[in-house]
Amino acid sequence: MILLRTHIGSALRTSRIAQGRTLRDVAKSARVSLGYLSEVERGQKEASSELLNSICSALNISLGEVLVRVSTQVRVAETPILTVVDDAA
Amino acid sequence: MILLRTHIGSALRTSRIAQGRTLRDVAKSARVSLGYLSEVERGQKEASSELLNSICSALNISLGEVLVRVSTQVRVAETPILTVVDDAA
Repeated sequence: MILLRTHIGSALRTSRIAQGRTLRDVAKSARVSLGYLSEVERGQKEASSELLNSICSALNISLGEVLVRVSTQVRVAETPILTVVDDAA
Repeated sequence: MILLRTHIGSALRTSRIAQGRTLRDVAKSARVSLGYLSEVERGQKEASSELLNSICSALNISLGEVLVRVSTQVRVAETPILTVVDDAA
């Protein structure tokens, strides 16, 4: 099943890693606990809209940017996989 | 403050109204209470990822479609409003 929280968590994690930052650093900036941020990144917890904004601010990215990435990922995940069967083999 | 739940609720409501359907009908199809769906549509409650999927299914729209609309709305909301000051007046 495609879950929004999984894709939001993945996008946040990708941004944090791209910036070479630790969970501890971003959690501190966002004023959330390290455990909470870790669970959000792994898609194990739904971030409230307010805390999602705090995490985006801590990462210096806009919510809109995150959602563009998330919507692209979700649409890819929704696309059926086509398997090519080689009858000539 | 731009809140994800506000924009998700708005997109869901827009889809439901466009289909000429009632809260009662969609809530029944999605197996959620009418009150819950109403609160989600008005941005007063965060929909869990699972229930968001149920509501999308009930509306026959994909999560990806909803997120494309939401990301567009959020990016517009994030764009600073430019005010033209007419000095010649």
